[in-house]
Amino acid sequence: MLNVIILGTGNLAQQLCHALSKVDMVQLVQVYGRNPNHLVWFETYTATTSDVKQIHDADIYLIAVKDTAIAEVSGHLQYKNGIVAHTSGATPMDVLCAQNRGVFYPVQTFTKGKMMHFDEIPICVEANNPQVLEKLTTLANSLSQTVCELHSEQRMQLHLAAVYTNNFTNLLYAIGEDICLRNNIPFELLYPLIDETAAKIKRMSPSEAQTGPARRGDSTSMDQHLKILSEPQQQEIYTLLSNAIKAKYEEKL
Amino acid sequence: MLNVIILGTGNLAQQLCHALSKVDMVQLVQVYGRNPNHLVWFETYTATTSDVKQIHDADIYLIAVKDTAIAEVSGHLQYKNGIVAHTSGATPMDVLCAQNRGVFYPVQTFTKGKMMHFDEIPICVEANNPQVLEKLTTLANSLSQTVCELHSEQRMQLHLAAVYTNNFTNLLYAIGEDICLRNNIPFELLYPLIDETAAKIKRMSPSEAQTGPARRGDSTSMDQHLKILSEPQQQEIYTLLSNAIKAKYEEKL
Repeated sequence: MLNVIILGTGNLAQQLCHALSKVDMVQLVQVYGRNPNHLVWFETYTATTSDVKQIHDADIYLIAVKDTAIAEVSGHLQYKNGIVAHTSGATPMDVLCAQNRGVFYPVQTFTKGKMMHFDEIPICVEANNPQVLEKLTTLANSLSQTVCELHSEQRMQLHLAAVYTNNFTNLLYAIGEDICLRNNIPFELLYPLIDETAAKIKRMSPSEAQTGPARRGDSTSMDQHLKILSEPQQQEIYTLLSNAIKAKYEEKL
Repeated sequence: MLNVIILGTGNLAQQLCHALSKVDMVQLVQVYGRNPNHLVWFETYTATTSDVKQIHDADIYLIAVKDTAIAEVSGHLQYKNGIVAHTSGATPMDVLCAQNRGVFYPVQTFTKGKMMHFDEIPICVEANNPQVLEKLTTLANSLSQTVCELHSEQRMQLHLAAVYTNNFTNLLYAIGEDICLRNNIPFELLYPLIDETAAKIKRMSPSEAQTGPARRGDSTSMDQHLKILSEPQQQEIYTLLSNAIKAKYEEKL
């Protein structure tokens, strides 16, 4: 049995609370949050406290607060014997001041209120000693089929890759939607294409999957697209991304 | 019963051949292709010819060749009474010289050899008269649950939106993969995130779904990302897309 305490009350804290409460080998002992109002949601799951002095003892403390608050929250735990782990992709492990420290980073985007199944969410772990690594790996395996040990620099790079494949991809979806809305076209027409684009890269590398006017070096189509684009920023993005594709495949044309 | 002839032997021609051959109300009469070698694949489905003079009569001729060859192929059909329709997103209907002309554009990316189920692929139709529209709509409905009438300018804009949500999105996936490969991180760790990013926009507009450092105006994270990016072009893309997100949400921060 692993006794776990969650620190934080945001989206990820809720997801972890919900997921961990279903795991037999985990006892969710407590949730800590500074703001008592934000703790109400957690009360159906376990004990809560907004007083750092009332934080119980546990095997693992999972810090799920915004990146800039991790060091401060970990400061409240510096005399605890349990493992202190944060859940951030972009934060080095060593901002934690605990003797037994680690990272427990679920690679996913979470939507408030939509509880996710963790079994398909990869969890990246890191630890400052083998005992910590073993316990965090056990906890990760209790939730997910995919657990991967990454050191802080790798995790930062993975997080950066996620900015491209999640944040920036979403911006492109938004541009697609904007173009549709301006022209009275239902954006839903693009859903199956968006799904297949995401599915395709599991069958082949995205470098092989690349198609489109820039990939073919079809400058007639590209010129025409630039002409019918009404937003300067969308034009700029079109040009830069097309040039990147062209440069990548030019020798192969 | 609709008699249909496909002109073209590429990826889309194969997909249409495979899908139409399963539809009871469609009789796939013939496939035309200039190169006899490329017709072999089609011989198990129907009759084939590489001789334009041997093209049969049919209710609908579907031209599935590359955009630049559409006008030429349609020239071979100018004395036919049937409907001549191309299947291109980026080509105006009126490049066709037939009296009864139209467009039959499936909004999807197709992978050679992977036959797709057309029932979830939106088909956009256009026609130069109501009778043509009715027949093309009937044909489209026989394959797909989603049929939408768009005029040529709208279709061109939809195709442009598809460049962002398919071609450019795939480039971002490729950058994500590149960052992972350079750092010995399994790219597969990002699959669930990529899937969820695509799934999320069906629950909320991508404009609402936007997250990430640029959305939060978190310049510390952005500076750090730029520092650890090794490729100048990836830096350039990072900066432009981050600025686009910042500009979009700045007033809302």
